This record gives sequence, structure tokens and C-alpha cells, in this order.
Amino acid sequence: MPSSVHRHISPGTTGSSLSYRTRRIDTLTPHSIPPVLHVASGDTVTFDCLDASNGQITPASTPATLAALVFTQLDQVNGPVHVAGARPGDTLRIDVLRVDTADWGWTACIPGFGLLADEFPAPALKLWSLQRGAGGESGYAWFDEERGVRIPLRPFAGEMGVAPAATGSFSTIPPYRTGGNIDTRHLTAGSTLYLPVEVEGALFSIGDGHAAQGDGEVCGTAIETPIKVTVRLTVLTDTPYVTTPHFTTSAAHPATEEFYCTTGVGPDIREATRAAVRGMIAFLGAAHGLDRTAAYMLCSVAGDLRMHEVVDMPNYVIGMMLPKSIFTKA
Amino acid sequence: MPSSVHRHISPGTTGSSLSYRTRRIDTLTPHSIPPVLHVASGDTVTFDCLDASNGQITPASTPATLAALVFTQLDQVNGPVHVAGARPGDTLRIDVLRVDTADWGWTACIPGFGLLADEFPAPALKLWSLQRGAGGESGYAWFDEERGVRIPLRPFAGEMGVAPAATGSFSTIPPYRTGGNIDTRHLTAGSTLYLPVEVEGALFSIGDGHAAQGDGEVCGTAIETPIKVTVRLTVLTDTPYVTTPHFTTSAAHPATEEFYCTTGVGPDIREATRAAVRGMIAFLGAAHGLDRTAAYMLCSVAGDLRMHEVVDMPNYVIGMMLPKSIFTKA
Repeated sequence: MPSSVHRHISPGTTGSSLSYRTRRIDTLTPHSIPPVLHVASGDTVTFDCLDASNGQITPASTPATLAALVFTQLDQVNGPVHVAGARPGDTLRIDVLRVDTADWGWTACIPGFGLLADEFPAPALKLWSLQRGAGGESGYAWFDEERGVRIPLRPFAGEMGVAPAATGSFSTIPPYRTGGNIDTRHLTAGSTLYLPVEVEGALFSIGDGHAAQGDGEVCGTAIETPIKVTVRLTVLTDTPYVTTPHFTTSAAHPATEEFYCTTGVGPDIREATRAAVRGMIAFLGAAHGLDRTAAYMLCSVAGDLRMHEVVDMPNYVIGMMLPKSIFTKA
Repeated sequence: MPSSVHRHISPGTTGSSLSYRTRRIDTLTPHSIPPVLHVASGDTVTFDCLDASNGQITPASTPATLAALVFTQLDQVNGPVHVAGARPGDTLRIDVLRVDTADWGWTACIPGFGLLADEFPAPALKLWSLQRGAGGESGYAWFDEERGVRIPLRPFAGEMGVAPAATGSFSTIPPYRTGGNIDTRHLTAGSTLYLPVEVEGALFSIGDGHAAQGDGEVCGTAIETPIKVTVRLTVLTDTPYVTTPHFTTSAAHPATEEFYCTTGVGPDIREATRAAVRGMIAFLGAAHGLDRTAAYMLCSVAGDLRMHEVVDMPNYVIGMMLPKSIFTKA
């Protein structure tokens, strides 16, 4: 790995954050947003990201703010970043080094959005005060102090992705095989995400800060917050089995095991689930030399299927999570 | 709770284990298997359960054994047990007090069964030697000793259920709203399962010992093993929100948080997922006084959607798991 070079991207340094939005890709022109930064493999980059409302929601907002939301500005991302040497078929390794949140956040029920959207037709907005811990990892937020309901902060970026090879215009709302709005709560500081590269330079983008979220993000939003996030971007050429997002988790929290995870992403939950399992079977073959049947059985007896995200339609993200502790020689 | 009375059920004490199979319910005669035992609410019962092959697979089996399997004998259960006072609309609380496995187990790929059945058409059988720990909870089994892959044992009963009210003949392969083959790996000793009672006496059955399993049980089998399992059966009359299986988990393992979990059970994954979330919203309203929107948001920021079982067709079991630690006053 080359010596680390640190770059810093924020909305202020390159103009309006709107210019970063992958949703602004010109129709039928693939990966047409020019890079805002060129880095070498192994460089670290810090991004100052607005919240997923693109700054439309503030600590002073009211439920009326939701009615005025400009939906085309939601889930904007910072980027893209061109990583030298990345070519189609490679893997971009993203080490999440640090995630700091703002001191406030919001959660909303947005009409038409969320797993039970038909049962929750009314808009609702909740504003949070975030008690940030050192490194942003050990803080908390009161959901209901009177009832004693307190949420531990586990900040991460809901959006991390690279440009797809296909031509067309891509919304940043659904997740894709190349990442994007994968809303996977396990990608906290200390975790590593692997994405399949489909275009020269990878073209990495990031955003959608979440201070905490459950697997599934069922109401459609997490604790949304601006974040300052630092990642290391490295090109790998020897992991062809990464054809959907894979990741490893951090053991920073005593209650958390470390996992290696594969995912399935697509509009059919069952097919996404099958893809997640298929991905783990391929990984276990490539990385641990297990034959396909042994790997399939290992998934069954030790792997956890979790629904990371079930609201960013039309695509689901299903994870197969295998605890790393079962590999006593790795 | 009345003083505990201990009963013991094994295949040997009441004849062939085949007589316990709920799949033997006479067509169009609801809950027609006579109880093998009557107990009072609060009594404990110990069951000696054959493995899910009903004794057809032994430590001496070979892959050829799979070809000769009598499928109608699979996933037999011990029971039913009549619990005095249980009435439709009540909840049966099952405290799992102890689960001991045999010193061996098996895992198989059975043609036509499993999430990737079409991609794994060949039968495969793996036999395990189980190194049982004290109480059966801290043991392990080598998946591949040469490669150093070791599975911690987390024994539980894959089948726990009460009789449905509907008339008809019910296979013990799919899970139902009333439980059955829910194959939920979190139901280890120290956990508590809640099932909706639909018939007088509840008519509880149990079986399908698993020494370890991942969420999803993707290849169709866990580490299958005979078990000796002790449960306490208690009738609750004040939990009408339990309309599908709910459960609490044990914190016996350092890497495990305690959760309260609701589930959705049915043939459509998305609908089962929605039902699991709906169940948690109802629980949070009833048990913690949260309004529906607050509960929905809490699920999104702190609840984990997991796919407990995706192979017992036609029904899936999806869980919404909320860590109990967020309730600082409960």
C-alpha cells in the first residue's frame, strides 16, 4: 500500500453540493459527472457531507418542512472520486477510518416511503440531540428520556458507491450491485467495504450520514445527520468474487462480533437473499478453499441472513453475515 | 406462578415417536391428536426428542442413507401437551430452561430442499462430533479442523408450536403463526418464546433439535441432533398483541445482546417482514406505551430485521429484533 495521502472534500471547497449528485448523471451518458478529486490507491479522503435532505431539514424544522421537501434533492452524495489504476473487474476497498456526526439529527415518516408506507400516510418529523462520544462511536441519543429509551450512536454513511458501467441516469435512492444507498448499519468506523469496479477510476461517492439505524431501516429513515467521514480507498485486483457489496465489521463494541458479509441487491427479496448466499459460497471457496457444498452448509449452520435495507425501492439489500471467530486459523 | 411440577416425555414412555407427529392430524379434524400429557400452567416438562430424521440418520449413516429417507417421517415432534386453562386468545409462554444435545449430529443437502436447491441438486451428508459444554451451551464442533473452522454450539429446538384452530391436516415442515418449525436460532436455553393460543389447552409440541444454526438455515438443515429439552409452560391472558411468535433472547454469551423479537410468518417474504414490524409496533404500544409512529421510527433506528428461516416452504420466518438495552428503565 502506498504511503497515505490525505485529501479533504466538502461542499464548500468545490461549489454547491448539488454538483456531487450522481442523480445528475446525464441520461444515456455513462459515469458522466467529472471527478471532483483524483487520488492514488491507498490514499485517504475526508468528506464533509450534508444530511440526506441536502440541508433542507435543520434543527429548526417543523413537520411543515416535510411538506415542502424537494424530493429530487434527497440522498445527494459527495463525489465522484477517481482512484488511479482502478479498472473494470477490480475491487475498490473502502476502509472506514472515522465517522463524526453533527450534534443533531432527524428521523421522519415521509408519505409514500417506508416498509409500511400504506399504514403510515401522515408525515412525521422527529428531531434528535446527539450526545457524541469520542470518535463519534460511543455516544447516545435519547429517543424518549421520560420512558428511559436511549439509542447508542453507531454512525456510518448510508451511501457509498462506485459508478455503474451501464448507460443511463441513476437515482441515488435505490442501492445497486455497485453500492450506493445500501443503508447498511454495520459500516461503522473500523469496518471495510468492498465494491465491484465497473468503470475506469472506480468513481467513488459517499453521503447520507446516519447516527444510528437498525437492520432494515424500516420507516425509511435512520437518525439522519450531517457527517464528516474519512475513508481509505484502495484498488484490489485479486478478489473477482466481489460482484456485490461485501464488508467486514468492526469489533469496536463489546456486544458485537466481527463478521465477513456478502450481500444481494435487487428488486426481489428472495432473489437478493439467494444472491447473498451465493456470494458467501463464492467467497468461502476463494478465500478459504471450501468446496461449494461445504460452504453452503457452513452458511446454514453459522451464517446470519439479515435484511439490511428494505425501503430504498425498488432494490433490497440482504446480507449473509458469517462470524469471523469461527475461523480459528485465519 | 404455581409451584413447579416436572414431567418427562420421551419416545419410549408413550410408544413410538411416530404417534407424536402433528402431521398425523386427521384431515378436516382440528387438533385431533389426543394429548400425551396434561399439565398445569407453570409446570416444567422435559422432552427426549429424536433428531429431525426421526432416527433414520445415525452416526453410521452414509450419503446413501439420504436416498432411502422416508420424507413423511421428517420433522416429527413430541406432544401435544395440554396446558390447563389455556384458551383461544391467550398466550402460551415457553421458558426454555435447558437444552442438551447428543454427542453427534448431521447436516445434509437434501435434493429439492433449501434456498439454493436448484443449484445443489446432489445429496450430501456431513456427520459431526459434538464437544458438549456444561449445560450444553458452551460446546463446539469442528466443521473443518484442518482449516481451523470451529462452530460454537448454541442448541435449541427448531420446532415449538401449539395447535392451530383451523381444521385440516398440517405438515410439520412449514412454520405457522402458531409456531411449529420456526427454526429460529435465538431460542437457546435462557430464552422465552410466546405463542398465540388458538385451541383449548394450547396443545404444545416440540422437537427438531439443532446444535447450531445461522439465521436463515439456508441449506435446509442445521447441525441436526437428538436433544433433551426442558421447558416451563405458562398461560398468559394479558398479551393480546402476541399474534405471531414473539421471543426474548438470552445474554448467556458475551457476544450476544438481549433482544425482544417479533416475527412475521407466511409465504411472501415482504409481507412476513411487514408483519414482523407491525408486531413490534403493537408490542411497543402495549408494553411501553409508545404511539404507533414513535414505535415505527424506533424499529427503524434500533431494530434488526433478520431472516430466521427461509427454507421451510411455503412459509418464511422474519424477525424484528429490538435490543432490550435501549430500554434503560425497563
